[in-house]
Order: sequence, then structure tokens, then C-alpha cells
Amino acid sequence: MTGVSRRALFGMAGAGVALAGAGVATGVGIDRLGEGSPAHAEPSTVDFHGEHQAGIVTPTQQNLHFAALDVTTKDVGKLRELLRTWTAAARRMTAGQEVVADGAVGGAAQAPPGDTGEALDLPPGDLTLTIGFGPSLFDQRFGLAAKRPPQLVDLPLFPKDKLDPARSGGDLCIQACANDPQVAVHAVRNLVRLGFGVTEVRWSQLGFGRSSSTSRAQQTPRNLFGFKDGTNNVKSEDTDVLREQVWAQSGDGQAWMAGGTYLVARRIRMHVETWDRETLDGQEQIVGRTKGTGAPLGQTGEFDQVDLDVGGAGGVPLIAPDAHVRLASHQTLNGARILRRGYNFVDGSDGVGHLEAGLFFLAFNRDTRKQYIPMQQALSAKDAMMEYVQHTGSAHFAVPPGLTPTSNWGDGLFT
Amino acid sequence: MTGVSRRALFGMAGAGVALAGAGVATGVGIDRLGEGSPAHAEPSTVDFHGEHQAGIVTPTQQNLHFAALDVTTKDVGKLRELLRTWTAAARRMTAGQEVVADGAVGGAAQAPPGDTGEALDLPPGDLTLTIGFGPSLFDQRFGLAAKRPPQLVDLPLFPKDKLDPARSGGDLCIQACANDPQVAVHAVRNLVRLGFGVTEVRWSQLGFGRSSSTSRAQQTPRNLFGFKDGTNNVKSEDTDVLREQVWAQSGDGQAWMAGGTYLVARRIRMHVETWDRETLDGQEQIVGRTKGTGAPLGQTGEFDQVDLDVGGAGGVPLIAPDAHVRLASHQTLNGARILRRGYNFVDGSDGVGHLEAGLFFLAFNRDTRKQYIPMQQALSAKDAMMEYVQHTGSAHFAVPPGLTPTSNWGDGLFT
Ligand code: HEM
Ligand code: HEM
Repeated sequence: MTGVSRRALFGMAGAGVALAGAGVATGVGIDRLGEGSPAHAEPSTVDFHGEHQAGIVTPTQQNLHFAALDVTTKDVGKLRELLRTWTAAARRMTAGQEVVADGAVGGAAQAPPGDTGEALDLPPGDLTLTIGFGPSLFDQRFGLAAKRPPQLVDLPLFPKDKLDPARSGGDLCIQACANDPQVAVHAVRNLVRLGFGVTEVRWSQLGFGRSSSTSRAQQTPRNLFGFKDGTNNVKSEDTDVLREQVWAQSGDGQAWMAGGTYLVARRIRMHVETWDRETLDGQEQIVGRTKGTGAPLGQTGEFDQVDLDVGGAGGVPLIAPDAHVRLASHQTLNGARILRRGYNFVDGSDGVGHLEAGLFFLAFNRDTRKQYIPMQQALSAKDAMMEYVQHTGSAHFAVPPGLTPTSNWGDGLFT
Repeated sequence: MTGVSRRALFGMAGAGVALAGAGVATGVGIDRLGEGSPAHAEPSTVDFHGEHQAGIVTPTQQNLHFAALDVTTKDVGKLRELLRTWTAAARRMTAGQEVVADGAVGGAAQAPPGDTGEALDLPPGDLTLTIGFGPSLFDQRFGLAAKRPPQLVDLPLFPKDKLDPARSGGDLCIQACANDPQVAVHAVRNLVRLGFGVTEVRWSQLGFGRSSSTSRAQQTPRNLFGFKDGTNNVKSEDTDVLREQVWAQSGDGQAWMAGGTYLVARRIRMHVETWDRETLDGQEQIVGRTKGTGAPLGQTGEFDQVDLDVGGAGGVPLIAPDAHVRLASHQTLNGARILRRGYNFVDGSDGVGHLEAGLFFLAFNRDTRKQYIPMQQALSAKDAMMEYVQHTGSAHFAVPPGLTPTSNWGDGLFT
């Protein structure tokens, strides 16, 4: 695919490509023109509008750029205005348009271009933009304390946490997912640019290869331990579980959050070099699944039900007491589940001879107090995998509900 | 594309997919199966063998993982053995196989798996693996001083360089390019793993979106300044220029390098936030080309010839004296050219509110003393673009010639 411009694509979208429901990818059939640009081959978009924000149950795209921002102004009016501006910008970019109408080259020669331009020739790549509000946004600065959802707690420090403040927290977050990293980076950069004087990037993280699938239509990807990751995830098709475990309901405390959810972000460094010295058997014991097919120990198919009681020789459970999937299972957590949407990362090397590799863990749940926190507590305390990982960053965000073509990201906060 | 396994692909390759010449991508026609995995849609390979190493004139793939390594042993025999092992491993991985025959799940349960597994279900993605030897490899440690090519100088410090030693140098480098970041990361990781006890990662860099095209069949990509980058690059089709300016010839000093080339890697931080405040006109003056089409100032088409003398109002040259393309042009550098193959990067944020974005510049030339160095000297001294960039890492490598199915990367050094 060469040269379907953002403009041309807008034309197509404008001509009435039907976009069905929130977060459903709409492939526009364009023939591929040979080698070289597979990531650019899909001029398809994900609807920005819907009951829930896109980018949560949307089938996980290939690439992530996640940014946490701090608000640097004390003027709440500016914040409110920025959320309005951001919504309009996101509406455009997720439809494959430039961030503003004048764009990279359409404006005045004597003014800075309206769009930074690096996505000019790229298809929209299923871009989704998802926003969240951190606990600190509800402090005394903006008069939003009464709007703070009770679910949006400050996360406790978990056993063995080694959090870097420079990779943690944030008043706001923007999650950009796309099938082209340049499209995700372009979107974050242009939103950040619009926020000049109002917000500032606190930290940001690129990810690739999605470590969790969120739809039964997707092949389960592998994380950097080489295991399939996402097999037993909550999937977009599980509407009952989503209602019960992911989407905030109107009686949940803050009515403005109904249809929203809570996002936990954890940057988890994985000591891949140490993991790679563990035996195959040892690795499978730690996870509780086989490495090849991903089947639970004691079963044969990837999607066979996990049976925590199935015994091996002498009746000893095949899935060990400290196996990751046992401790993380809803069966041992009073039914608590989460929707995982993490990405693999390699941030160069660590200065002492190893790759700085890991999992940028993203999870959505309805009540972090009852779901993520007890789960992480169990894992941090007992998971055999903890020997090979280190949590280096942490953040928590309230993710407001989806949008209509006339609503904006700030509506719940300011009306 | 779901589930063409590495094994299945090997089967296909083994069944006689003809691979023609060094660095030519061979698409194996497999229908795409809809949404989600564009980067995984191309089970195509690039031949590892040929007159020159693949990954130099090979049409630039989407993703890069570049690693610089130091040799930690004093035992030259181990280094020699490792280069042999690496060659066999690279031969396998570039053909879409696991790094060793036993692989991630095929070995003994009581032994660490032979392959780390995260690429198990992924097509080869046009993976290329290219090796280089740094100046420090030719110091007293391994008795290789007499093998050092005169072209492989220690790079001088250029005006305004702000080099981080932790991002510079290296005894060896591995450049992995692929159309899937996970495939590139997997390849580097598995080579690094094979080097345990012999080499150690000194620094590593991920890149995306290729900032330079190396073939006339490719659409010119854009860098993070939003400009097309690679328009006037030396292309794989320019065989005469390649012979004259890129490939080392047998009379060049070290006969073992004939068919090889010299690689300069520069990590260039780009202050995108400052750039974005420059006017469109100002940006175009700095580059010397228009932002939209990429045409040289004074011309209309992207590929129109650069005319450094074309005058505007009052005869003032349209391409300014300090424009990037003037200073970098072979017309002002006694005919010197280089083959650019850089990638964009975003390494999170810089801690003071900005994205840590830039260009990981990779260039190949026949004699760095006569090509890259004078070019960089001119740019560092006079380029108007220098106000917006900062060189933060630097390395130089001798890239040995291509391989036959029985030769190995160390042959030139050790025979
Ligand atoms: C680097 C860190 C981690 C790695 C490598 C990892 C890996 C895995 C793997 C391989 C599986 C099995 C496949 C699947 O069902 O998806 C799994 C399952 C799971 N993980 Fe993790 N995980 C990590 C961190 C976490 C964290 C921090 C949490 C939550 C606090 C978590 C929650 C879960 C859950 C809920 C399941 C499904 C368990 C079940 O019901 O079967 N994981 N993980
Ligand atoms: C962040 C840093 C840089 C950026 C953003 C950049 C950008 C560009 C752009 C937009 C062009 C015009 C399109 C093209 O012909 O490819 C160009 C051309 C070129 N650049 Fe750079 N460049 C950078 C660094 C360098 C460096 C370090 C060198 C070499 C020392 C270099 C050498 C060249 C050459 C040789 C050309 C072609 C000039 C001609 O003959 O027309 N560039 N660059």
C-alpha cells in the first residue's frame, strides 16, 4: 500500500464507510502493493464513539504509545478547554485525518504547521485514543475532589515493588494503540502539543507485540517469557463478564463514570536472561501452562478450562500452589477478574549487560479495590514468577465512558 | 494471518522457495486473514547469503533492534567460536526457524529451552541480521590489530556532540531489521544469549517507521520532523554508486573487507517540541525541501533533481547556504555520498516534560574518512538543523562482506 493519504482516507470515511459499534475495526479493502509496508497495509479505522471508549475491548492493535501527563496550570478553565480540544483532535486522528484541518502543510507558510506531519502518508492503522484521570487530578487544585470515584484509590505499595517515581503516577493518561507505531506516536505527540502550557509529559512508554489478546478472533500473542499471554483473558465477546467485572455501573458511586472503567498500568521489568536459564519444566510450573500450545497443565488444548485440582503422580496438583495462573485465577480470588491489555517492551539495555525488557501491563476493571489489588497482593506475595520480574512503574486512572459525536472527554468532570 | 508457524514456514522454505540475490525480499503468497495482525501478514524472508550482507541495501523493513556488544572474554578462541555459532543461528532465524533445532519446546523438559520462544507463532517478517566490528575489537586483546581496516577510524568529536558513553562504541554490533519488532527483538536476544560469557550488551536501540528508504520501490517514509527522508538516498538500484561509494573494494586496504562496508551509527535526539514551533516556511528553509511533496525548493516533484543554484527573488538561492540538503549534498562534498538507513525512535520521555524522540541514524559508506566524516563536519558546523538536534550516541563498525552457505561472520578476521 503506497500513498493512501490521510486526506484520501477521510474522503472514503466521509463517503459513508459504516462504522459499527465501539471499538470494532472496519477494514477498508485496498489491495496491497507488494513488499515493504505490511504495517501500512490496512487503511482501517476504529470508531471513536460508542457506549465505552475505544481501546479497551477493541481487538488489541500491534503497537502502543502510552503517556502520563501532569497538569501544569492552576486554571481549571484551561484544563476544561483542553479536554474539549483533545476530544475534537482525537475524533479527527482516529478517523485518519490530521489533528486539525489546516494540518502539516495546509496552513500559512509563516505559521507553525497545525499537524507535525509524520503520519501524513500513513493509513489510520486502527488508531484508538483512550483517556484516563489519575487520583491526583482530584486533589485541591481544580475543585474536583467531590467527583473522585471511590474506586480510584491510591494504589498500595505491594511486596517487592521497586517503583520509580519518574515512571509512576500522572494527572492524566493517553493510551494510543495502532497497527503502526508511527501513527500511535504521532497521535500522542500532537495531543501533547495541543496541551502546551496546560499539561506536560510525566512519563511515556512504547510497547509492541501486544502481550494479551482481547478478542476470540485474535491469535494469542506471546510475551517475552515466550508464553502465550491472554488465553484466559476477559474477551470482548464476554459481554456478561464485561458488565459485571469491567464496566462501571450507574450505582457504583460516581454516576458520571457509568460505562467507564479503571485502568491500572504497571511497568514490569522482566529479567529475561535469568528466565532463559530456567528449565522448560520449571518455566511451565511457574506459569501453570505449557509453553508450546499454552494448554493448562493437565489439559491438552490452549482453551481447555483450567482445572486447579487435577492431580499428577501421587495426587499432587499439577498446577503448583505458587503457579501464576492459580494465584491470578478468579477461582482463588472470589471470582475477581480483570481485562488485560499489556504490551511487550524493550527500552534499550540496563547498563550492566542486559536488555531492559519487560511487560507494560495494562488492566481494566470495575473496582480496582476488589479486583486488581487483591490479585496483585496474591501475586506479589506468592507468585513463583516474582523471582524473574520487578515492578518499576505504577499508575491508576479512572477511564470515563464513551463519547457521542457531540460530547467530550471532560463532560463527566465538568457538568 | 494467523498461525503460520516457524516450523511450517521452514517446511515451505525447504521445499524450494527460490531466494534470489542478497537482500531481496521474497514474498510467499499467503492470503491475509482480515484484521489485527498486519505486521504478521507477510511470511517472507530475505536471503542471508550473497555477495554483501543483507540488511544494507535490502528495502528498509519497518522495525529495528540494534545492539552494540562488548567482548568480555580474553580467550580469542571463544570469540571465534561464537562468531561461528552466531552465523549458524542467524542463518536459521532469517529463514524463519528457531535459533536452534531443539527450539523453545522441542528439547528436554529438564533443560533450559534452546530458543526463547516469543517468535514461535510469527512469520519471519523479512528479518535481516547484519554484523559489524568496532575499532576496539582490533586492540591488543585478540591479536587482531593487523587486520584493522584503515577506514575504521575512531570517529572524531564533532562540534556540538554531546555523546553519552553508555550509548556509544562497542566491540561488535548486530543490526536486526524486520517487519515485526518482536521478530527483531527475538533475534537479538537469542544471539545475545548464545554469547553469554563471551559478549555482553553495551547498549541497544529500538527503532520504527524507517526514516530512510533504500529502494526506488519504496514510498519515502517520514522522520519525526514530518519530512520525507530518503528521497535522495543512494538506492539499491544504483549499482554504480554502490560500487563506488558503499562497497569496500579489494584494493581498499584490507582484502578481507572486499564486499563489506563501514557503518556509522549516531543516536540523534530531536527536539521535536521546539521544531514544532518553527514556521512551515522556516522548516522548509532549514531542510531545503518542501514538507508536503518533498520536492527540492525551486522544483515541483519529490524526485526532481536538487538544483543548489536556482534563484528566487533577487537571485538569492532558494536553497539557503545553511540548508541541510545543501551541506549534505555530494555537490558540495566532492562527490561524497552515503547510504542512509536510519529509524525513528521514541525512548519514553526526558524527565522534563518532553518526548525523548529522535532519529537513530545508520549510514553505510566505503570510506568513513572521506565520506561520513567530512559530511558530518559540514553539518555539525553549519547546518541550520543543528539547533533542533543533539547527537547523543556514536559508533563505527566495519561490516564484513556477505556469506556463502558454508562461510561465517568471523572468516575475514580469523583466516
Ligand atoms: C511480567 C509479568 C507477567 C507475565 C509474564 C504474565 C504472564 C501470564 C501468562 C503466560 C498467563 C497464562 C495465559 C493467560 O491466560 O493469559 C497469565 C495469566 C494471567 N495473568 Fe499474568 N503475567 C504477568 C503479570 C500479571 C499481573 C501483574 C497480573 C495481575 C495483577 C496478571 C494476571 C493474570 C491473570 C488474571 C491471568 C489469567 C489466569 C486464569 O484465570 O487462568 N498477570 N499471565
Ligand atoms: C535528526 C537528524 C536528521 C534529519 C531530521 C535529517 C533529515 C533529512 C531530510 C528531510 C532530507 C531530505 C530528503 C532526502 O533526500 O533524504 C535529508 C537529506 C540528507 N541528509 Fe539528513 N537528516 C538528519 C541527519 C543527517 C546526518 C547526520 C547526515 C550525515 C552526516 C545526513 C545526511 C543527509 C544526506 C546525504 C542527504 C541527501 C542530500 C542530497 O544530496 O540531497 N542527514 N536529511
